[in-house]
Amino acid sequence: MQPPLKNVAILGSTGSIGTQALDVIARHPDRFRVVGLAAGTRIAEIVEAAKRFSPQVVSCANASDVAALRGALPSHTRVESGATGLMAVAAESGADVLLAATDGAVAFDAVFAAVERGIRIAVANKELIVAAGELFVAAAKRSGAEIVPVDSEHSALFQCLVGEPAERIGSLILTASGGPFWTWERDAIAAASVADALRHPTWQMGTKNTVDSASMMNKGLEVIEASRLFGVAADRIDVLVHRTSVAHGFVVFTDGNVKAQLAPPDMRLPIGYALAYPDRLPDRDRVDAFGALGATAEAAEARLAFERPDLERFPCLGLAYDALRRGGTVPAALSAANEIAVAAFVAGRIRFGSIAEVVRDALDGTPDEALSLASVRLADGRARTAAQAAVEARTVAAAK
Amino acid sequence: MQPPLKNVAILGSTGSIGTQALDVIARHPDRFRVVGLAAGTRIAEIVEAAKRFSPQVVSCANASDVAALRGALPSHTRVESGATGLMAVAAESGADVLLAATDGAVAFDAVFAAVERGIRIAVANKELIVAAGELFVAAAKRSGAEIVPVDSEHSALFQCLVGEPAERIGSLILTASGGPFWTWERDAIAAASVADALRHPTWQMGTKNTVDSASMMNKGLEVIEASRLFGVAADRIDVLVHRTSVAHGFVVFTDGNVKAQLAPPDMRLPIGYALAYPDRLPDRDRVDAFGALGATAEAAEARLAFERPDLERFPCLGLAYDALRRGGTVPAALSAANEIAVAAFVAGRIRFGSIAEVVRDALDGTPDEALSLASVRLADGRARTAAQAAVEARTVAAAK
Repeated sequence: MQPPLKNVAILGSTGSIGTQALDVIARHPDRFRVVGLAAGTRIAEIVEAAKRFSPQVVSCANASDVAALRGALPSHTRVESGATGLMAVAAESGADVLLAATDGAVAFDAVFAAVERGIRIAVANKELIVAAGELFVAAAKRSGAEIVPVDSEHSALFQCLVGEPAERIGSLILTASGGPFWTWERDAIAAASVADALRHPTWQMGTKNTVDSASMMNKGLEVIEASRLFGVAADRIDVLVHRTSVAHGFVVFTDGNVKAQLAPPDMRLPIGYALAYPDRLPDRDRVDAFGALGATAEAAEARLAFERPDLERFPCLGLAYDALRRGGTVPAALSAANEIAVAAFVAGRIRFGSIAEVVRDALDGTPDEALSLASVRLADGRARTAAQAAVEARTVAAAK
Repeated sequence: MQPPLKNVAILGSTGSIGTQALDVIARHPDRFRVVGLAAGTRIAEIVEAAKRFSPQVVSCANASDVAALRGALPSHTRVESGATGLMAVAAESGADVLLAATDGAVAFDAVFAAVERGIRIAVANKELIVAAGELFVAAAKRSGAEIVPVDSEHSALFQCLVGEPAERIGSLILTASGGPFWTWERDAIAAASVADALRHPTWQMGTKNTVDSASMMNKGLEVIEASRLFGVAADRIDVLVHRTSVAHGFVVFTDGNVKAQLAPPDMRLPIGYALAYPDRLPDRDRVDAFGALGATAEAAEARLAFERPDLERFPCLGLAYDALRRGGTVPAALSAANEIAVAAFVAGRIRFGSIAEVVRDALDGTPDEALSLASVRLADGRARTAAQAAVEARTVAAAK
């Protein structure tokens, strides 16, 4: 029995997740149809994708690019821009599934509009879950919209939880690659160069995510996301360092049984899962048992090793747990301050070791307050300002 | 919300699985009520369990023990024996779940009667699945009865498949401890003593199962069971040797994602799961992440290692694959011949290395024929006779 064709809209269609999603969709024209594409300023890429997939609605960031897009696309294609365009693609394109793959807070309103209409959200927008996850999950509960995570670790946990009673979760375990600095001494990490930080052992990601992986802030943000997505408190979420990135997550149930998910480090797998759920795509006929464990077919043994994370050398992970425990808008402030700190590090303005210091400074100045989309925006702005000030203070130190 | 109380009947209540099931039930009086108990000749144990759990129906193997049981139990307890008793406990005790935990073929009719009434079967009777699995699964499909395996490996696969589309199974992986002879040379294995064979590294089991584990025939039988329970062909079932018995099974899906189940080697976990399914028992509050991986909380690292099985040194595994590929009554013959061969080895009549030879001889004489409960019984008897003859031939050789 052929599953029904699903209408898919993508926010962030020219980004890493967006283009990989289009790859998956192109391989399964009998399963998915693109109805909306929203991206930023890469107009040539938007035009190319729109010609290939013929969505009803296309959107770009700036109104000034709309004319160029209209000229390049068939007249029946609706072309929009900015917030209106994001909203049109998310909630007015007739999507069954919205892939939320923009960075930052730009698409919050559009994603909330979609979730309120009951549209499934395949969510890759980390900030949305970190900063506004409780509001997002509550909105989905009200409308009946499904939220399926795209991040490999959360997809792992989601897959382990399919068909399981949520109230029987004992704890969640997220794995972490440990990044390029896992074996480095604390002082060496603090003085690491941008090039060092961008040498990730297993995953290919953008600059921001790769630096977050080196500081393990990415794992801290993922702990917050896991808490929001699965309704599990901070003290029931563990992180294990697993250098080979084969196993992505474990669920420990209250009856003592444990389930794990493993997959090669290829984002098209969790993307395909989020689009096809509750079905799975028929991409591969037969995977060798060793291959399933990340080893080659010729290997004599497959090994999966796990170590505890080290909060001394990787203080960002501890800061994220602290932010999760404080709750309210503190996770939003953490995420915003980290964005400023990472940008300053990549620009050569602060040392790698100062990323955590900048974030800590910003969190120290963050009040505990109730969560709303408005308070999240305020906390975000306030944290950026505080982080900028902390960067200035440390730029001097770095220049010493 | 409290899940409803489930009525449980047990066939084989004084055996290892039966008594551990009663342990689980005793810890959860709010979840389970015992309505029927059937066992063999351990009358004192039957009386003790019947007094403790107050089932409506109790059964023993021999009619000659009925009077003793009646005398020891309250007058409202129905006491039966033999085939009638198994049938009464399985199908007439008002059970919601029947734990089928007898060995061999003695309870086939009773279990089929229960499955035809739509009663869930928590199945620990290996021979039932190996010899008559296709009939059993077909009967369950007709009546809507659920089959939940109790064997740790099949429970693992079942747990990984909860909520998943069955048609998206790419392959199944069963793990094997490798038994006591995993590191031994072929000649040493062939000449191994009974005491050697009974030194299992991780699980506590009965004599027959422990010898089967040493020959890896147990894994071969489990491959056949997995094929029957999950409708997956022989060439899509892999075995990996995993010495520490932490991970019990993996499902590789057609989309490239893999799910695994891990648990400590304690049969009460899969038993509790099979009884509570689709819920899980709230036995443990919080398991340490390392503990979930089978390591102690103090360990610096948790490792899971997997090796390929060696069909040269462990020919029984290959024989089981062959029997599965031939199908029909051949798996029944394999199981029956192996029972004879193991008994002969334990009695000191044949060498360990002759177990596989005896089974191969018996299979060579087994015709390919259609499966029915009647043809299974015939094949079973025929295989036992052939295996006995093969044992006689080799008893001489062993005495040389």
